[in-house]
This record gives sequence, C-alpha cells and structure tokens, in this order.
Amino acid sequence: MDKFALAPAFLSTSEPLVSLKLCEARLQADARFPWIVLVPRRAGAREMEHISNGDRAQLMDEIIAASAAVRAIGAAIGRPVERVNVGQIGLKTPQLHIHVVGRRADDPCWPEPVWGRGEAVDYDPRTLEVAIAAALGVLKAMQAAA
Amino acid sequence: MDKFALAPAFLSTSEPLVSLKLCEARLQADARFPWIVLVPRRAGAREMEHISNGDRAQLMDEIIAASAAVRAIGAAIGRPVERVNVGQIGLKTPQLHIHVVGRRADDPCWPEPVWGRGEAVDYDPRTLEVAIAAALGVLKAMQAAA
Repeated sequence: MDKFALAPAFLSTSEPLVSLKLCEARLQADARFPWIVLVPRRAGAREMEHISNGDRAQLMDEIIAASAAVRAIGAAIGRPVERVNVGQIGLKTPQLHIHVVGRRADDPCWPEPVWGRGEAVDYDPRTLEVAIAAALGVLKAMQAAA
Repeated sequence: MDKFALAPAFLSTSEPLVSLKLCEARLQADARFPWIVLVPRRAGAREMEHISNGDRAQLMDEIIAASAAVRAIGAAIGRPVERVNVGQIGLKTPQLHIHVVGRRADDPCWPEPVWGRGEAVDYDPRTLEVAIAAALGVLKAMQAAA
C-alpha cells in the first residue's frame, strides 16, 4: 500500500483545518456555503467500501462532528445552517472524500445540491478567519475527546 | 414521537425492495442508474444528527449493503458499476433518506452528481424485474445475517 497523500485538487480548493483521528478536515474555499471536506488518510481508498468497518464507524463520527462544525460556521457568520448535506461523489477527484455542506433556503443552489453548480466565491479574509475559528472550535474539541 | 410513515414522494418515485434492520430500502424508478434509496424508520428524523449513534452505525452498514446491491444490479443488467455515489440531501423531501447510486463514465450525468439533473427514465418491465431480483439477492442476504 502506498503512503497516503492528499490529492492535489484539495490543496487548491480548500484550506486545512485539522487532522482528525481518521480524516484530514478541510474548509472548502467557497464563501457561498459553510462546507467541510473530510479525506480519510487511507492510501488508495476511493469508496467507503474500501475502508474497514472500524474506519467507517469513525468516519460517521467525523461526519457528525463536521455537521456541527458547519453549523458553527453558519452561526459565526450570521447565516445559520438550516439543513446539512452529505455527499460522497468523487467522479472528478477519485480519492475518497466526503462533503459536509451547510444549506439555507436563501443560498444560491437551494433546493438543488451544490456540487458542480455555479462558481466558487472567494471568502474575504476576515470572514475566512471567522469561519476557520468556528470550525476549529468544534473539531478540536472532538480531537481532544478522542 | 409520531409513528414512522414513508413520505409520499418516495411512493411515486421508487419501488419497495425490503425492510432492513433500520431502513426501508427502495429502488429508485429511474433506469438511467442503479439507484437505491434508504429511509431510516425513525419518525421525525431529517438529519443524520437526529438518529442515535447505534442507528448511525447500522445506517453505515446498510449503505455498504446498498452499495453492493447497486453493483449487483449493474452486473445483472450488463452495465457494471464503476463508482458508487452516496448522498444525503433532503431539500425537496425533508424526511431523512440516503441515496446510493451506481455510476459509469458513460452514464448521462457523469462526472456530475445525478440529483436534480435530467429526467428519470422508466424501466422496461423486464429490466425492472432483473434489477429488483439482483438487489434483493444482496439485501436479503444482509437481512438474513442480521
């Protein structure tokens, strides 16, 4: 098995948040939605079928933590999250990764999914800082509890 | 807590397959993709955050079984599945449900997600029968093992 390395596509489209027990948690660089990407550190995995039962249980826990983190981002930037979308697609970037996206009825894609729709909008630096701090508040608590 | 009832939208867009330990498993009535919808029998749940840890572990197991089932459908109809997509969206039908969709590079939506793109295509009756039998072969084995 090769060593795990993050696919280059993630480096250009997201900001590092924290290494959880299983996944690299990253903030999608798209101010339209509070959006976290989880990438399990398992070399060669492309599907959830490719990781162990134990890893899948951990992944589910990290999805729930990321759900809380996108809600924290929404609250911190004054746009509370109404629904959380979770998706594992991977047709453009095959490395296994899970999207956790906070949605609001007034967001630009509602009621459609966000993937492959419209163009990402850059965060302004201050909002990016607030979003990262809010996400880390949740995700670092999970890390400490592990 | 109210009694669980399947949202009416599922009745018109999918065919019943089997009741798993947690979820109603249904075949999406769309011949474009081997596609199973899992609906946890938990009244009022709209997010994965709304069900227990134990239910979430079971849900993950049922997602993996549904992944095997969409692969079995693809094999049975001569269109082997290349990737599996998993999504929890729920903006049009709020009741918690998870999509498990078999994808191929020659399918009509690749490399985009399937949700909200194009129109469903009816199965011809013979292919529907083959698809249901293939899915049940996998899902009933899981049910028997539980």
